[in-house]
Amino acid sequence: MSTPLRLGIAGLGTVGAGVIKIVRKQASLLQHRCGREITISAVSARSRDKDRGVNISAYAWEDDPVALATRDDVDVFVELMGGSDGPAKAATEAALAAGKHVVTANKAMLATHGQLLAGLAEQTGCALRYEAAVAGGIPVVKSLGEGLAGNEITRVMGVMNGSCNYILTRMESAGLTYEEVFDEANALGFLEADPELDVGGIDAAHKLAILSALAFGTRVDFDGVEIEGIGRVKIEDIRHAADMGYRIKLLGVAQMTGRGLEQRMAPCLVPALSPIGQLEGGTNMVVIEGSDVGQIVLRGAGAGEGPTASAVMGDVCDIARGLRLPVFGQPAETLATAPRTQSATPAPYYLRMALHDKPGALAKIATVLGEAGISINRMRQYGHADDEAPVLIVTHKTTRAALNQALEAMEGTGVVTAAPVALRIESV
Amino acid sequence: MSTPLRLGIAGLGTVGAGVIKIVRKQASLLQHRCGREITISAVSARSRDKDRGVNISAYAWEDDPVALATRDDVDVFVELMGGSDGPAKAATEAALAAGKHVVTANKAMLATHGQLLAGLAEQTGCALRYEAAVAGGIPVVKSLGEGLAGNEITRVMGVMNGSCNYILTRMESAGLTYEEVFDEANALGFLEADPELDVGGIDAAHKLAILSALAFGTRVDFDGVEIEGIGRVKIEDIRHAADMGYRIKLLGVAQMTGRGLEQRMAPCLVPALSPIGQLEGGTNMVVIEGSDVGQIVLRGAGAGEGPTASAVMGDVCDIARGLRLPVFGQPAETLATAPRTQSATPAPYYLRMALHDKPGALAKIATVLGEAGISINRMRQYGHADDEAPVLIVTHKTTRAALNQALEAMEGTGVVTAAPVALRIESV
Repeated sequence: MSTPLRLGIAGLGTVGAGVIKIVRKQASLLQHRCGREITISAVSARSRDKDRGVNISAYAWEDDPVALATRDDVDVFVELMGGSDGPAKAATEAALAAGKHVVTANKAMLATHGQLLAGLAEQTGCALRYEAAVAGGIPVVKSLGEGLAGNEITRVMGVMNGSCNYILTRMESAGLTYEEVFDEANALGFLEADPELDVGGIDAAHKLAILSALAFGTRVDFDGVEIEGIGRVKIEDIRHAADMGYRIKLLGVAQMTGRGLEQRMAPCLVPALSPIGQLEGGTNMVVIEGSDVGQIVLRGAGAGEGPTASAVMGDVCDIARGLRLPVFGQPAETLATAPRTQSATPAPYYLRMALHDKPGALAKIATVLGEAGISINRMRQYGHADDEAPVLIVTHKTTRAALNQALEAMEGTGVVTAAPVALRIESV
Repeated sequence: MSTPLRLGIAGLGTVGAGVIKIVRKQASLLQHRCGREITISAVSARSRDKDRGVNISAYAWEDDPVALATRDDVDVFVELMGGSDGPAKAATEAALAAGKHVVTANKAMLATHGQLLAGLAEQTGCALRYEAAVAGGIPVVKSLGEGLAGNEITRVMGVMNGSCNYILTRMESAGLTYEEVFDEANALGFLEADPELDVGGIDAAHKLAILSALAFGTRVDFDGVEIEGIGRVKIEDIRHAADMGYRIKLLGVAQMTGRGLEQRMAPCLVPALSPIGQLEGGTNMVVIEGSDVGQIVLRGAGAGEGPTASAVMGDVCDIARGLRLPVFGQPAETLATAPRTQSATPAPYYLRMALHDKPGALAKIATVLGEAGISINRMRQYGHADDEAPVLIVTHKTTRAALNQALEAMEGTGVVTAAPVALRIESV
């Protein structure tokens, strides 16, 4: 155990730079904790000369991440490039095929190719670790896959995209529109190069799909996640929610039901005073419910140099200490293919719509809901604008299927001016 | 890896029964996750015939836990008897000496003999795991020792005694006195056989001492924990705190300062709207602050059959999967002896006292505080009772040493009727 563990780092953005800083400043601490030195042999990135606040001249340089991943002096390939395919996947496959361990922060790659990569890692006896891919610095992969391994996991929930949570909380606190806060967040560099990955819920859905596999022993099924972004949430939704004691959060929920695996990532109403409801800004929270442990709540920074590099280093330390686990908690070939079920669990829903200002319009909506077997908890028309009557409805518990039927029938009535906004009210 | 991992369980209280239930009902899940079967070979307890809700007839019985711990058909000795010394320690030592792994929920034993036992385990290459000893089902030992291993830990805080938190929250919500709620909690079986372990802060201090060692790489130093129980907290303190936007919690704080390791377990005022302030009933919360990860908050059930058994099983799974780590995160012989420092970090303090109703009494108190270099943020005399004037003071930041000097000088003035209640106001 006294040989150093040698890293090859591909991708030198903020997280890569953060990892290099930790390896340097905590060298003696890491050696104490791991029983061996952690060193960096080589690095790779798009540009060699960019100033990253760390001096990389002591490390060998590779233009090609595949070459980096397979170097003789690399024991662990640290993949921080991102992207589900392309160089990240090619280099990860090459590393595993060459018997190198891999630590990655790449949620898109794992959500898309997790099954393939897990199989490859397990064939060659390598570790493939990804704590940094989910909820930044929060040790959720470790808690779920190891600490709670004695539990049958019943539900996993989480607010796992800090940018969306920033936008939603800032809309409420500053009274700004979605578009205003979006532009602000974009200018501050809070959003991905393709902002739709954030606000469209895709990034968070990648994370949820990874947690689902780990929680339920199922094959990663990103395509099975029902995804809805936050783009349709208006400041008035946030205000109505607040009036009723709720906050709107982009919440991921994965749960195993009698009918199959339900995975959804969508803006939801949650009680304002619940731990999730109180989450401000870029902080992430993951809630895990298990057969014996009950509910465990984990909270921390979901992104950023330090927290994400901390998660990468946790994985590196595990590898240095000799930990070898199946990638998704059990051998990849034993992961089950769960049937998909879409929001089958009943819940109350929040509906906001605008009706053409004609007699009987409201009655038609009420009738349509009744015909779909949905009973109304509260219904309120609030003012008038341009011949439109805005209406807010909160239903009693119903299924998404019944709701979809009602929403479709509403369109047929000709009284709604546009597709209603429908948000699930989640009990958390 | 296909041989079963065989447990010997000593102590068949609620946690022991819970472990047996999980091993049975989750047999197939555990086998998938661990790559091998988990079985129980033998058990031991004070009474063989007591009804525990589980059938133990399939397991060999040992009257003597030492005999159980060293049986040939036991790979892991699961110690759930409790008590810092006596049979628990004897059997744990015997198990480790015989090359058996140990999983324990025994905070008193680890807080008292952790250094000895860690050395023993590391000598014989055995795992000694204790997730269940700290904060029940919350995977805090794993998060701190593994997930955050890349961080220099700067502070660990926690509400880790559910009984105390129950008493304090119930006093507030029901407006009952400490004595009334204590009797209620005792009748409900919420308190240890010796309630002073709970309300005296000792149980929680055991847990803090264990976390300190893991966080800071120091020898377990239970005697270095400054401990104050909740017995002197009155309903009026809770009300004053609430009026100022605070709640009173039995809070443990461990932090490494320039002057040494500060460990304290005492009732404190914390902001009512902070995660710790909002913790209700028996729930536990641990806050970990690291150099890179920032602040991580973990929350869950701190006691009870399911949560504690879940923690035990997490450790058992780790052992089944081959995880072998130094007991306190680095080899026992490298753990440092940190100098002790007692509440050296300055903080504002809440003081409540009763003054003899004489002219100039309040002025004398103010003078004494000024002479100790303590400035007053607010000071208020609130009503009268039996020739006594109750007074509430909130200071600006000061050290405990300065405060102690002032408290001593107050006694000398002859105007206080009894030693004032002094509670630290903690920023969390």
